[in-house]
Amino acid sequence: MTTLTIALDVMGGDFGPPVTVHAAVRAVTQYPELHIILCGIQSQIEHELNKVSLPLESQLTILHCSQVVEMDERPTATLRSKTDSSMRRALELVEQGKADACVSAGNTGALMTNAYYVLKTLPGIERPALVTSLPTQTDKKVYLLDLGANVECNSEVLFHYAVMGSVMAEQVEGIEKPRVALLNVGEEQIKGNDRVKHAAQLLKDAPGINFIGYLEGNDIFSNRADVVVTDGFVGNIALKACEGLGKLVISEVKRITGRNLLTKAMALLALPFLKKIYSRVNPDQYNGASLIGLRGIVVKSHGNASVDAFLYAIKEAKQEISRQVPTKIKDKIEIALG
Amino acid sequence: MTTLTIALDVMGGDFGPPVTVHAAVRAVTQYPELHIILCGIQSQIEHELNKVSLPLESQLTILHCSQVVEMDERPTATLRSKTDSSMRRALELVEQGKADACVSAGNTGALMTNAYYVLKTLPGIERPALVTSLPTQTDKKVYLLDLGANVECNSEVLFHYAVMGSVMAEQVEGIEKPRVALLNVGEEQIKGNDRVKHAAQLLKDAPGINFIGYLEGNDIFSNRADVVVTDGFVGNIALKACEGLGKLVISEVKRITGRNLLTKAMALLALPFLKKIYSRVNPDQYNGASLIGLRGIVVKSHGNASVDAFLYAIKEAKQEISRQVPTKIKDKIEIALG
Repeated sequence: MTTLTIALDVMGGDFGPPVTVHAAVRAVTQYPELHIILCGIQSQIEHELNKVSLPLESQLTILHCSQVVEMDERPTATLRSKTDSSMRRALELVEQGKADACVSAGNTGALMTNAYYVLKTLPGIERPALVTSLPTQTDKKVYLLDLGANVECNSEVLFHYAVMGSVMAEQVEGIEKPRVALLNVGEEQIKGNDRVKHAAQLLKDAPGINFIGYLEGNDIFSNRADVVVTDGFVGNIALKACEGLGKLVISEVKRITGRNLLTKAMALLALPFLKKIYSRVNPDQYNGASLIGLRGIVVKSHGNASVDAFLYAIKEAKQEISRQVPTKIKDKIEIALG
Repeated sequence: MTTLTIALDVMGGDFGPPVTVHAAVRAVTQYPELHIILCGIQSQIEHELNKVSLPLESQLTILHCSQVVEMDERPTATLRSKTDSSMRRALELVEQGKADACVSAGNTGALMTNAYYVLKTLPGIERPALVTSLPTQTDKKVYLLDLGANVECNSEVLFHYAVMGSVMAEQVEGIEKPRVALLNVGEEQIKGNDRVKHAAQLLKDAPGINFIGYLEGNDIFSNRADVVVTDGFVGNIALKACEGLGKLVISEVKRITGRNLLTKAMALLALPFLKKIYSRVNPDQYNGASLIGLRGIVVKSHGNASVDAFLYAIKEAKQEISRQVPTKIKDKIEIALG
């Protein structure tokens, strides 16, 4: 049996060990081939482990780290000030080949900055991207990237993102020849800014990429593409605007509860359902986001993640390990670049 | 009594005269001071007018135009091929001072292109913007611009947009010292791309502008700002992503109807309500969008607009005329530029 090793940033997230340690315990119980290195403050980890009594010692190791990256800390500042943080040490385990992936629910900016610094990008890849899968009107998912790793993307970076997203859809979601689209303000060839137009040119000619052209914002969730590519500025704002709309609708539904009994009942019934749908477009709350394009696997879980949600992020990491996502991205970039 | 004159592109939109003419009839019935020039194919206009029998002749004039800009026509092509279109002629009436505003439900791209060509921008303004007001979690609205008039905006253009949006919020919505924010991927000063950072610098020092800093996508609808500024690429995609999310939620609600009786009832009750909320983020369906920064008033109604929705767009134009929006923008730009 091949052992898969995941380095867990136990201290990250709003709850830390009370959530992350128990997600780890559940993960190793479920997967005998899984080994998890719990990076964080030893006493806190042991405190949580003492609550469960399972013979998992061989699957769980503790790596004591003296520091914690706070959720509101400036990302770049952590590079020098937090070299013994659970986040940094977990990433270093991946870099040293001692772990196959890192999972963290910590400060997203700090995770991106530290991961980029520690792991570096794959050959041929200029910049990493933050990617997530989102629901569509069908049972299929759509991969959207970049969600904010890079706010300034030239056309080459967009091209790399398309290749990387294509690999994710193929390897993690199992979609053959994923349909890749560039997010744009119209579907006609003449539409868009120069970066998008040039990226489209590059993609049209790229071997191994099923480029289907431009897609408008209203089609992100319509299953017209399996991979939707845009820069981190647009991706971040588009997804957060959706999150904001979700909040707006929920607040409108709550307002209704003041009216007549029928609408009141309807609103009360609709609320949990609506919340569930909207949580699905809040990517890291739903299933975590992956930082791809690096020489290692990094999965970001939501800061507010429950044990279930954090467990989901661990499973995502496990899937990326077994499908060798970084290697596949490296290979596909070589092919795509001709 | 001051007469307000509006030039109506009667042929624009999915329905043309059967909607637009009747909206015009209702508008002049409601407002005795209003005069509307119906631009379009005379026989079709007369056909509709014959259905109503009101002594409105003095408030309604027909300007026969032999051409119609189709909804799927290439915007730039219409500049040369459709010089006698109802859209073009309506814009020319504004340019010639024969009308105070133009209202159209036609091809958005063609309207922007023709309006820019015919009316030109105000002194000091580089580019026009498409702006709309959107609902927030409170009773107040928020102005979002640009929705797609310009996909490449440098920081000066973003600065102009902030000033223009501020005037709209002040004059049309009656908000004193509107809070103006730049859409960004974070609220910290270090966040964002160079264009946004430089625009923030310009806005910080601008007299007469209540610049409150950056705002993230999830706060568009939260009433933290009265005016949210971004480039046409981001604005278009963010708003359309919200539209797409609305469709996704509605399709999920419909799916539910197959399950048990309670959820079925809930879904059926929730649907019209949800559709109503989502139509509010589909800006031109809700209340039209305005093309601002030009030497004249241009209001775009949704192609699919009903008589009510088109009437709303006429009222929006009337409001912009009486508050002299173009003049106010010109004045405010002068002040803001110091």
